[in-house]
Amino acid sequence: MNIQTSLDVAAGALQLPQPYLLFLGDTTIRGYAKTAFGLRDWAPEKCVGEYALPGATVSVGLEQLAPAEARARGARSMLIGVANSGGVIPESWMPALFEALDAGLDIVSGMHMRLAEMPELAARAERLGRQLIDVRHPPAGLPVGTGRKRSGKRLLTVGTDCALGKKYTALALARAFTARGVDADFRATGQTGIMIAGGGVPMDAVVSDFEAGAAETVSPDAADDHWDVVEGQGSLYHPAYAAVSLGLLHGSQPDVIVVCHEPGREEILGSPGYLLPSIEETIDLNLRLGARTNPAIRCAGVSYNTAHMAEDEAIALMAADSERLGLPVADPIRGGDAFARLVDSCLA
Amino acid sequence: MNIQTSLDVAAGALQLPQPYLLFLGDTTIRGYAKTAFGLRDWAPEKCVGEYALPGATVSVGLEQLAPAEARARGARSMLIGVANSGGVIPESWMPALFEALDAGLDIVSGMHMRLAEMPELAARAERLGRQLIDVRHPPAGLPVGTGRKRSGKRLLTVGTDCALGKKYTALALARAFTARGVDADFRATGQTGIMIAGGGVPMDAVVSDFEAGAAETVSPDAADDHWDVVEGQGSLYHPAYAAVSLGLLHGSQPDVIVVCHEPGREEILGSPGYLLPSIEETIDLNLRLGARTNPAIRCAGVSYNTAHMAEDEAIALMAADSERLGLPVADPIRGGDAFARLVDSCLA
Repeated sequence: MNIQTSLDVAAGALQLPQPYLLFLGDTTIRGYAKTAFGLRDWAPEKCVGEYALPGATVSVGLEQLAPAEARARGARSMLIGVANSGGVIPESWMPALFEALDAGLDIVSGMHMRLAEMPELAARAERLGRQLIDVRHPPAGLPVGTGRKRSGKRLLTVGTDCALGKKYTALALARAFTARGVDADFRATGQTGIMIAGGGVPMDAVVSDFEAGAAETVSPDAADDHWDVVEGQGSLYHPAYAAVSLGLLHGSQPDVIVVCHEPGREEILGSPGYLLPSIEETIDLNLRLGARTNPAIRCAGVSYNTAHMAEDEAIALMAADSERLGLPVADPIRGGDAFARLVDSCLA
Repeated sequence: MNIQTSLDVAAGALQLPQPYLLFLGDTTIRGYAKTAFGLRDWAPEKCVGEYALPGATVSVGLEQLAPAEARARGARSMLIGVANSGGVIPESWMPALFEALDAGLDIVSGMHMRLAEMPELAARAERLGRQLIDVRHPPAGLPVGTGRKRSGKRLLTVGTDCALGKKYTALALARAFTARGVDADFRATGQTGIMIAGGGVPMDAVVSDFEAGAAETVSPDAADDHWDVVEGQGSLYHPAYAAVSLGLLHGSQPDVIVVCHEPGREEILGSPGYLLPSIEETIDLNLRLGARTNPAIRCAGVSYNTAHMAEDEAIALMAADSERLGLPVADPIRGGDAFARLVDSCLA
């Protein structure tokens, strides 16, 4: 899969200095290093190595490099690839962060606590001319949306709810497109996706008036046969986050949507009493609203997150639902013929 | 009409110190004083007087008072009731702004330029313990939406486009409800409305993730027979601003919507090639999306802005469209029987 370069990112989107040294801190809990594992899996060519402190027991399997060695091998930033409880950067990490700045690396973080709010770190970065980049925070100068039709093709993953595979589905589709020789970019709209792509806009942190304009920025004009595969956010049915989803749908102008769902989930995350919509209803509403900025919008199929199901059960369910909907239904993690049919349908 | 007091504003919404002294600057162009005229028309009980500089030729007809006199009569803030080209506060206004702070008044502004970004003004305000309040900027600490059903009744004005009477319609309906003895509050979601109401949230300036939560804050729990009449923003059909409209629709949980439209307008403001939706389509989509947080939502009627039409032409058009839609259609500025039927329908 192509990764967007500084040449094809529109003004207004974040751009991260790459390749990365993945910082693992002193982590002993594998789940805390989700970001680092995601980068290793989806952007290995952007990771020159990992850097763990004494006491750490988690590795993503890359070569352990100190910041100066990583710099010598071309790294341009150290990316904090671990979270911890509370989202706060602990005092024990500070020498390593200083070491990175001193070695000539910028620092990239997706933690709640802003790097720039740590006075000693900010002063050192300023003195050395280094960047401290917080990917939770949108870049300045995002434009208002215009609704102008852009060139190139676009796919957007949409959902019945939050947190059920929209990022993963977009990454898997972009990779599959590229494997078929189709020119495609994954376009990121959330923090982990932005780290993987090396750029993008954290759509949930954008001021509402600029939401559609920010989405327009994420997938700029492109060649006619080029596909942008845009990471979806939230759900039109989420009582808290539907504004994010609609701004992204309008601004992305997708030619194709893929609906993401987790079979068995019945209630919206964090909103007790709000039932998930049906797949049919989700397709219908996304097409109706998306047609406002792209009248040619269509649904190419459905992506199920079946991680919690037995394989035979998952395959039987997807086959039955595909029959009922008249559309491919696949789990990108399981792959197989069903996923190949979904890719066919997207590119049809 | 009731004006919200500090007692019934939920945590998170802006609250403006009232009553006001209306500052008119040195304006000679009536149109620049639109905010001051709006306050005189819709919140006369909150305006103790006006303050114009030498050279000004525009008056809203209130008593001319210097800040100290206004303070003695109970004023708590001086509100900048004029705009100028560029939205910048001119040097010639500074002595009057200092005078207001010295007299014990806070300053309220809706201009693009932030009061707090003027160093001398900020320093003086801090030294004296005065507030500089920019109503274009949302308060800190807005919550994420919960979707929890709140007590009391709510009406939201929605539109086929921006800038065609949603604020005016909400103000006129709240006033009409009160005139009929119904306990009602106008709830503001834009800067002029916030000045009139004395509080609210500028919805277009809220970060998308908090959009529905901000709307929930604007119309908190209330008595069962109380009506909040909420000022609408944007349009679900606007390619730039639909995110604002959907967050406001979900968070407001309206029992009743009134669709606002300007007959004859064919294209969305600022988006050439985007045709306005029909009234029928606008009703249908708002009800479908609004039903997510309030399944009992209904459309009570339509508000036309017919300022550009001859009276007989306007009345004939509204009668014909009312017949076709099976709903009251009225221009709140023209009032009359048609508007009375719209009010009946809202309260039915």
